[in-house]
Amino acid sequence: MKGKIAVLNGPNINLTGERETGVYGSVTLDDINRSIAEHASALGLECVFFQSNSEGAIIDRLHSLRKECDGVIINAGAYTHYSYAIRDAIAAIRLPCIEVHMSNVAAREEFRRTSVIGSVCAGTIAGFGKNSYILAIDAIKMLI
Amino acid sequence: MKGKIAVLNGPNINLTGERETGVYGSVTLDDINRSIAEHASALGLECVFFQSNSEGAIIDRLHSLRKECDGVIINAGAYTHYSYAIRDAIAAIRLPCIEVHMSNVAAREEFRRTSVIGSVCAGTIAGFGKNSYILAIDAIKMLI
Amino acid sequence: MKGKIAVLNGPNINLTGERETGVYGSVTLDDINRSIAEHASALGLECVFFQSNSEGAIIDRLHSLRKECDGVIINAGAYTHYSYAIRDAIAAIRLPCIEVHMSNVAAREEFRRTSVIGSVCAGTIAGFGKNSYILAIDAIKMLI
Amino acid sequence: MKGKIAVLNGPNINLTGERETGVYGSVTLDDINRSIAEHASALGLECVFFQSNSEGAIIDRLHSLRKECDGVIINAGAYTHYSYAIRDAIAAIRLPCIEVHMSNVAAREEFRRTSVIGSVCAGTIAGFGKNSYILAIDAIKMLI
Amino acid sequence: MKGKIAVLNGPNINLTGERETGVYGSVTLDDINRSIAEHASALGLECVFFQSNSEGAIIDRLHSLRKECDGVIINAGAYTHYSYAIRDAIAAIRLPCIEVHMSNVAAREEFRRTSVIGSVCAGTIAGFGKNSYILAIDAIKMLI
Amino acid sequence: MKGKIAVLNGPNINLTGERETGVYGSVTLDDINRSIAEHASALGLECVFFQSNSEGAIIDRLHSLRKECDGVIINAGAYTHYSYAIRDAIAAIRLPCIEVHMSNVAAREEFRRTSVIGSVCAGTIAGFGKNSYILAIDAIKMLI
Amino acid sequence: MKGKIAVLNGPNINLTGERETGVYGSVTLDDINRSIAEHASALGLECVFFQSNSEGAIIDRLHSLRKECDGVIINAGAYTHYSYAIRDAIAAIRLPCIEVHMSNVAAREEFRRTSVIGSVCAGTIAGFGKNSYILAIDAIKMLI
Amino acid sequence: MKGKIAVLNGPNINLTGERETGVYGSVTLDDINRSIAEHASALGLECVFFQSNSEGAIIDRLHSLRKECDGVIINAGAYTHYSYAIRDAIAAIRLPCIEVHMSNVAAREEFRRTSVIGSVCAGTIAGFGKNSYILAIDAIKMLI
Amino acid sequence: MKGKIAVLNGPNINLTGERETGVYGSVTLDDINRSIAEHASALGLECVFFQSNSEGAIIDRLHSLRKECDGVIINAGAYTHYSYAIRDAIAAIRLPCIEVHMSNVAAREEFRRTSVIGSVCAGTIAGFGKNSYILAIDAIKMLI
Amino acid sequence: MKGKIAVLNGPNINLTGERETGVYGSVTLDDINRSIAEHASALGLECVFFQSNSEGAIIDRLHSLRKECDGVIINAGAYTHYSYAIRDAIAAIRLPCIEVHMSNVAAREEFRRTSVIGSVCAGTIAGFGKNSYILAIDAIKMLI
Amino acid sequence: MKGKIAVLNGPNINLTGERETGVYGSVTLDDINRSIAEHASALGLECVFFQSNSEGAIIDRLHSLRKECDGVIINAGAYTHYSYAIRDAIAAIRLPCIEVHMSNVAAREEFRRTSVIGSVCAGTIAGFGKNSYILAIDAIKMLI
Amino acid sequence: MKGKIAVLNGPNINLTGERETGVYGSVTLDDINRSIAEHASALGLECVFFQSNSEGAIIDRLHSLRKECDGVIINAGAYTHYSYAIRDAIAAIRLPCIEVHMSNVAAREEFRRTSVIGSVCAGTIAGFGKNSYILAIDAIKMLI
Repeated sequence: MKGKIAVLNGPNINLTGERETGVYGSVTLDDINRSIAEHASALGLECVFFQSNSEGAIIDRLHSLRKECDGVIINAGAYTHYSYAIRDAIAAIRLPCIEVHMSNVAAREEFRRTSVIGSVCAGTIAGFGKNSYILAIDAIKMLI
Repeated sequence: MKGKIAVLNGPNINLTGERETGVYGSVTLDDINRSIAEHASALGLECVFFQSNSEGAIIDRLHSLRKECDGVIINAGAYTHYSYAIRDAIAAIRLPCIEVHMSNVAAREEFRRTSVIGSVCAGTIAGFGKNSYILAIDAIKMLI
Repeated sequence: MKGKIAVLNGPNINLTGERETGVYGSVTLDDINRSIAEHASALGLECVFFQSNSEGAIIDRLHSLRKECDGVIINAGAYTHYSYAIRDAIAAIRLPCIEVHMSNVAAREEFRRTSVIGSVCAGTIAGFGKNSYILAIDAIKMLI
Repeated sequence: MKGKIAVLNGPNINLTGERETGVYGSVTLDDINRSIAEHASALGLECVFFQSNSEGAIIDRLHSLRKECDGVIINAGAYTHYSYAIRDAIAAIRLPCIEVHMSNVAAREEFRRTSVIGSVCAGTIAGFGKNSYILAIDAIKMLI
Repeated sequence: MKGKIAVLNGPNINLTGERETGVYGSVTLDDINRSIAEHASALGLECVFFQSNSEGAIIDRLHSLRKECDGVIINAGAYTHYSYAIRDAIAAIRLPCIEVHMSNVAAREEFRRTSVIGSVCAGTIAGFGKNSYILAIDAIKMLI
Repeated sequence: MKGKIAVLNGPNINLTGERETGVYGSVTLDDINRSIAEHASALGLECVFFQSNSEGAIIDRLHSLRKECDGVIINAGAYTHYSYAIRDAIAAIRLPCIEVHMSNVAAREEFRRTSVIGSVCAGTIAGFGKNSYILAIDAIKMLI
Repeated sequence: MKGKIAVLNGPNINLTGERETGVYGSVTLDDINRSIAEHASALGLECVFFQSNSEGAIIDRLHSLRKECDGVIINAGAYTHYSYAIRDAIAAIRLPCIEVHMSNVAAREEFRRTSVIGSVCAGTIAGFGKNSYILAIDAIKMLI
Repeated sequence: MKGKIAVLNGPNINLTGERETGVYGSVTLDDINRSIAEHASALGLECVFFQSNSEGAIIDRLHSLRKECDGVIINAGAYTHYSYAIRDAIAAIRLPCIEVHMSNVAAREEFRRTSVIGSVCAGTIAGFGKNSYILAIDAIKMLI
Repeated sequence: MKGKIAVLNGPNINLTGERETGVYGSVTLDDINRSIAEHASALGLECVFFQSNSEGAIIDRLHSLRKECDGVIINAGAYTHYSYAIRDAIAAIRLPCIEVHMSNVAAREEFRRTSVIGSVCAGTIAGFGKNSYILAIDAIKMLI
Repeated sequence: MKGKIAVLNGPNINLTGERETGVYGSVTLDDINRSIAEHASALGLECVFFQSNSEGAIIDRLHSLRKECDGVIINAGAYTHYSYAIRDAIAAIRLPCIEVHMSNVAAREEFRRTSVIGSVCAGTIAGFGKNSYILAIDAIKMLI
Repeated sequence: MKGKIAVLNGPNINLTGERETGVYGSVTLDDINRSIAEHASALGLECVFFQSNSEGAIIDRLHSLRKECDGVIINAGAYTHYSYAIRDAIAAIRLPCIEVHMSNVAAREEFRRTSVIGSVCAGTIAGFGKNSYILAIDAIKMLI
Repeated sequence: MKGKIAVLNGPNINLTGERETGVYGSVTLDDINRSIAEHASALGLECVFFQSNSEGAIIDRLHSLRKECDGVIINAGAYTHYSYAIRDAIAAIRLPCIEVHMSNVAAREEFRRTSVIGSVCAGTIAGFGKNSYILAIDAIKMLI
């Protein structure tokens, strides 16, 4: 039975709850991860969590996931906008992947309107704060 | 108590279930709307539905919603990519609005990667077929 | 004797007085139209008013004006920025036409700096709130 | 036996014979439609005609054609250059469609050189005045 | 009581009435200034006039105006299209400023469609020959 | 009496029937020319045919045609997209010229969407396979 | 009899013979002007010389020339690349004007490849050091 | 003693005197060549002439010139704007080369404002009709 | 011994302390110059000061400096973004030159991110208010 | 048994050994061809050689090769950057084709970084002088 | 008392003194750091140093600094031009940050003219070799 | 005697043989490395291998190679398209470096057509699967 989901977070998201709280709110990444785990558990899904500021570490983790998990939820942070290497990693592992952003990237700086990973994901959810992850759990439940 | 949600669909979405079924699946818009209504109802939300191929009619409907509803879910179809008039209407009515697409627009034609309405919405959900609407109902429940 | 002027307003302008009041002030479109009619009347001009959120309806009205009026004042709202169809309609009816904006479009979003109708109008007046229309009445009086 | 063809005209084409006569000549749209009908009839084809200045109405009509007709000839006027909604409608109805222009759009303003509907049509005929339609009738006869 | 207005003209406008008379008519800048002064006087406004072909001199004059005048009407001529220095001067003096053009710049060469000063002015009036200034007097009367 | 038409084909069109048969069908250029000649003959027109892979040879032939023929049908192949020299030749000979393409260039690679010769031709016909030429014969019959 | 020619030099050309001698050689502007005057004299032409680093002064001088001279040779230096004000001045005075550069601007920095004055001049001569002026004297002799 | 100059003309220039006479005048290329030869002879220079509509033939001729001549005057016609192959040939032969145009290319279509050969020539002369060549003879006399 | 430094300020900087005080603080240019002079004096450097709103005057002053000074500190204000003429003047005088801005231009309007003079300066210091000049004095001390 | 390879060279490559020897070395094209033939022979491959400065001739030769050879090595010289006609020819003949350059085009002028033929070749080898061809022989041996 | 400053260096700066010595001089990064520490110490500031070639490690270090230091001096090397992740880290830690470059990036390759981190720093110092850091120490002393 | 070659592979290449096997074939990176080592050994070259998904680790390895090896073969994967940091590292170590790609990047997504490292490498080999490396070994043998 399918049911293991990886939740990956990219650069600077470890500072959530401290950084740009006007935009992201004040709950921490640990708080968010706890909420996600609970929500997932209620849906019969198990979550593994990973955060890194390193592009290479995110790629390494994506690679290792391909035999461990059934789906990926990724908030690649600023790497979203230029990391073709992460894009290729997502394409390579052939798992359903959902692109997530806490803020509504469409309403921020121009450079945040380009996602180089969007075309290799199944879909995108952006703008709902920590609930973006919760919705992504629901979405991936429907996909896998 | 807040609880009335408008679900607006733009051009060609009335043909869902018939058009580009490879991309959009074969359920009809009526089927989708029924699913949405049921899902919303379970969350204590009432839905009103509207579809039009006319940019002006969509704007008219958005205007009338501002005194009727508590939130808007909009799939503006191709108007997403150039209708600054719909953008202005969304901004004008000052209701929380969620941009929805059934397909993953990031993986289709280049012109579909531009959304002129994204910056005046609260967030975006794309790529999950009819479930994009279901997720948007969940999302708007959290927003209002 | 020449003396009948059409005042056309495009999408979302019907919400004037309610929408973005910081930018547009709080008088309604009806208030504005009354002021325009009075000002025009003092100059011996009669005004007809029309507002629509529909690009097609604006074009239809422009067509019908060509045998009814001596000049056109048009605030095409967001259609200003992309409606080549309205542009062609203005060119087709061969009446002196003045492009009007209440806000100073040059100081707002980038997309508002492009007018696709400007080159087929006689001139432009922007940035003076409801007085943009009043000035346009004066201007068209000088033109016709 | 296949044999019913829809001839659709977009914004401002109803003014043909009056507008920019230097470019389009002085015959009216009714005159042109009569010529088309006669020419089609000689080839065993029946024509239905539709003109609208409204993008939404054109889309509605395209939708209704999909069960009525065997082919479409469309002069989308200025909508040719930006209406991705009409583009999607043409793609959705899966009928052979020919893009027609009376003038040689390649020799006019820069914006007329872009057609957003061309890639979903079977072919294009432009520059032959009312004969562009006549040639399109011949062409669609060969296609269907 | 507020009431002193500066009317500034930029490069080549001293040749008005001689240069490109097809576009600008044959009245001279002195004629125009006399008309403006009379019109302003009737509204209880006093005008000071200045013309220079020098970007630096225009900036110097703008600076000196900030303690002398209540508003500025400026036709910056070709400097409109590239003088960020004049732009900064207008922003610095914090007086209401109206951008004026005699011709309809939207219908001329491509480079004339960009105004680098528009975003720091209150509004724009273009296309009405010498009446552009007259209308600007009316407009500034409403602003100050 | 006018009646001699040149049919010019540019680079790689000599391989028609062999190259990209999915796009162009399997009839050869000789087959096509025979069909064109027959169709033209039925309309009282005589055709001369020319194909070359050389830009210079096409220009030489266009020059020699100016005293021999009454009209030109040209499929300039890939030269369509960059040969300003062929463009100048068409403009120089002052014969009515029709741009023809067998495939629907609007639906192929991006670079095929630019025609540098379109603005000096009378019109364009594209997308109807060998029938593009047949339609062009009809069209030129109407022009000369 | 026509015969008075103005030779105008723009910014930094007064340093010729000292600045970038690798590009411009070591003769001074005075030396060059003497050569020009002698060459012109031999052709029955009288020269007046003017150099300024000020855009406004160059425009002023162009204006005064319109009643004094029969032709203008201008090396606008770096103003060549952005001074639409000088462009308008050249257009306004309606004298034959030749654009001159000592260096071959096409082989230098990218920004030097744009001339905003070229389209209002009769022609251009560039790349021949001081001889560019001598050739321009010959050229203007042929024009006036 | 240096003294042999090649005068090369590119596509469509053989039609000079017949084509676009408004722009180029009515003298033929033979007339022009005769004038050039006479002018050159008076300066002690011998000229060889070559015209071709073929890019390859122009390159072949440039190659053969490198052992025959002391300088090149080239009017590459429309190839000026895109033939990097001719550019490389000019660079390869290491002779002083002057780019010549009869018309003032800066005042014509946008595409004519780009020269891909200018950066490998010694200089440019444009806008003086047949005298552009005469001036180029003078210029090359000074260079070699 | 090297030791004389010119401090040049461009357009609108004379208003410092009055204009955009949020960005630039409230000390005047005279205050700033006094601080610079004191700081320089402590380092054994003598300063000369110059401010002008005129591009030409700035160029003139740069020229005269080349025999007077050992280094230049320049805040070219808005001319930074388009004055290729000032760029050429800096290159011509062959003195070490430091580009200075009081504000952090990288964090302001898009047009302020382009410096056309940066490539001919030795270095850049921006964002430290009046201290940008103080730091530049230190920097030039190290350079000369 | 597969084994006949065509080695095609485009414009100006016939001057190898004479032109830009700093970049290309001093061996001639004949020397290079001899080396290639020897190397190929050792691998059991026979080579045919062709060089032309004419785009059309290169296309003609590509066409004739399709029945003669098993693979193509092409150095299209400057045509690489704009000849869509050669691109179509390569695509048409359906032979494995390798794009070769002696110099490292990525390190030269900007225009050399675009290859319009790369997407229809099997691969590219650039930057190894004459050895680029030798390596291409090895590569094509592996492909056919 | 504020007084601890982090000096961060990005990719390849560890090779300073060895790499591109023409541009960067021959002192090593250790030499530079010693000079910085001494200079800082004299101003009552303590420095911590960090260099990494890894984008992620630089972000990690920036994060850890936010509780340790009072200011940051960063030479992000090539990451300056594309690392939006480092940009977000700088913005997140809310410490005054100065962008430093040893070379004058404005005078090098085009890609070095874009800084994606500049807009979140307090200011920039570039072009003074190792002294860029020394000046930054002075600058940060003034800021904190 | 020169003879040690480093073979570096960037992100996702460790998945070769598993990922996008249609494009890259099914041999693993270890298989490929074994083939390379054998081929190199036959040429008297020793190979060291390195693969990392981390940009920083690749730069670190490039740095350490500069005293260990005589040449570098690098397939930088997706970093090819944006890592100016890797570019600077290659330039810094001053070893001959060859850019290698298994697939023909010219025939894939648009973003893969830009290489930011190409201009600091000696040459490029792309499109031959694992044989791209084999050919690069041959090529580097010729270079060192």
